[in-house]
Amino acid sequence: MSIRKGRSVTISDVAEAAGVSRAAVSKVLRNAYGVSPGMRQRVESTIEQLGYRPSVAARALRGSSYRLGLEIPYTGARFMTQIVEGAKRAVAGTPYQIILAPADGPEYDTLESLADGLVDGIIAISPLVDQAWLEDLARRVPVVMLGRHDTPAGYDTVTGDDHAGARAVMEHLLSLGHRRIAHLTEPENVTTPGSGTPHSVRLEVYRACMAEAGLADHIRVARRDVSGGDAVAAAAALLALPEPPTAIFAGHDDMAVDALAAVGRTVAVAGYDNTDLAAHPLIDLTSVDQEGVEMGAQAATMLLERLQGRTEPRHHVATTELRIRSSTAL
Amino acid sequence: MSIRKGRSVTISDVAEAAGVSRAAVSKVLRNAYGVSPGMRQRVESTIEQLGYRPSVAARALRGSSYRLGLEIPYTGARFMTQIVEGAKRAVAGTPYQIILAPADGPEYDTLESLADGLVDGIIAISPLVDQAWLEDLARRVPVVMLGRHDTPAGYDTVTGDDHAGARAVMEHLLSLGHRRIAHLTEPENVTTPGSGTPHSVRLEVYRACMAEAGLADHIRVARRDVSGGDAVAAAAALLALPEPPTAIFAGHDDMAVDALAAVGRTVAVAGYDNTDLAAHPLIDLTSVDQEGVEMGAQAATMLLERLQGRTEPRHHVATTELRIRSSTAL
Repeated sequence: MSIRKGRSVTISDVAEAAGVSRAAVSKVLRNAYGVSPGMRQRVESTIEQLGYRPSVAARALRGSSYRLGLEIPYTGARFMTQIVEGAKRAVAGTPYQIILAPADGPEYDTLESLADGLVDGIIAISPLVDQAWLEDLARRVPVVMLGRHDTPAGYDTVTGDDHAGARAVMEHLLSLGHRRIAHLTEPENVTTPGSGTPHSVRLEVYRACMAEAGLADHIRVARRDVSGGDAVAAAAALLALPEPPTAIFAGHDDMAVDALAAVGRTVAVAGYDNTDLAAHPLIDLTSVDQEGVEMGAQAATMLLERLQGRTEPRHHVATTELRIRSSTAL
Repeated sequence: MSIRKGRSVTISDVAEAAGVSRAAVSKVLRNAYGVSPGMRQRVESTIEQLGYRPSVAARALRGSSYRLGLEIPYTGARFMTQIVEGAKRAVAGTPYQIILAPADGPEYDTLESLADGLVDGIIAISPLVDQAWLEDLARRVPVVMLGRHDTPAGYDTVTGDDHAGARAVMEHLLSLGHRRIAHLTEPENVTTPGSGTPHSVRLEVYRACMAEAGLADHIRVARRDVSGGDAVAAAAALLALPEPPTAIFAGHDDMAVDALAAVGRTVAVAGYDNTDLAAHPLIDLTSVDQEGVEMGAQAATMLLERLQGRTEPRHHVATTELRIRSSTAL
């Protein structure tokens, strides 16, 4: 046993010393099915020998599930791949597993179901759920919300810097000489002014930048019909206007890719999220990188901190960077 | 109360008659947190009045979770969107919810964790898990496996017709006059001959079609490095061969899209799964539609049948259809 001093004992240390996998240690900790008595004894004696006693082990004794729930608004959204990847990386080497709960319709039900004994903590993307309700939920189970620009007392938030990201897109398009710039965004209920959703902020910045540039008369806002639906028709309708836009700022890459399907390379198109598809040579989409993997990792890390006892709220803001590609170089 | 005769009472009927949402009925059935005594009484008396007694309600009394687990090998795969969408559609209107468990590394752990009291039934895409082990798992919890060409006794399977689908691609490419056709597929461990994985079947059909056409000397198999990694380098390496292929048959659309990133429009490229991206005008990928949404719906429906008592195994094979687009029209 040669555990370095000044460092707490990890599950990897236990696994190595016991000569078993980390998954096996995790299974012993959470009393999972299929652990042989010999395995259990070996792991438990190693845990005692090394003095492995994080609060997670204590939780196991109280019947912890060792699962973290990640609520996602709909499964097709490409940005989610980054969030999930980051969350998985953050829990690697801990006994926790990530499970995903796709919200179908009202997110309240999905969140309640997760809190209902299924998971030890919740990461959620629920822009429309009432803050007071979330504060109440967070009294029952630790909660980290993604993308909400609110300042709650009982839960944590991880957001991108939507002000800076949206402004970077608009300054880029304006610097290219575009005047008729349209904004393609989500349905009205997701962009209510002052609601603090990412799409309400991006829309607000779009309007402000247009006004500042003396282009208030050219403000055109198009929306996809329903959350999760495609934005091809909305983008095509912009092209059919008497004075069609020469550039489209889409609220996220999925809508931008839909816009490219409708307008091809005739109109400059910029997206948001820098999903993996943006860098594909046949798509080559200018987009805002808001460190989605890091956002997912931060959210999971903050949840683990809460599980280990932190109670004061933390609010992390990810930085943004505009990635300029040929979709805006017409 | 005007429930049509000859039709069993559904949860929607209960919801309508009680004047509450289906979600509320579901919550009462599964004893979820947050149901007021008044709500519970109203729903329960309506259930009694209408004679709503499916076996799912009986399960609630035994402590059912009303969750179905869907194990997915990695979250970035675009085909999964179709499977999840289908599964969600199939459970809509039932008290069941779908949760997703991304497998990180060995699928055995993820499946055991799901079976460990988390869900009432499991849908899984685990091509490498041992059949005997799955038969054992299926004695504890109902299981439906996606994409496995085995004929188990204790669980159900839903597969595409990989023989017909792969043959359609090869006949299409051969009919266009291609002779140097390469196959881009998954790592060796996922394509072991005779293993019954979709990718082993597609590879086998590729080899057979090449041999039948007298092109055995032109067989070239490229693989992406690790499951979930991209296939750009593998496709680029094909182009660097002394006699590069004029066509690439990629084992699924994600690899085909990667191939397009490497080879552009210089080589004919065909994929498999007909993911949403294949129809995008800037990608426009020839691909095999294997009814992914229907496969997901079938799997969830078969799982619900098992939860209602069916024990004899069912094996559903989805039909395939080649969608020809410009990626193979060079």
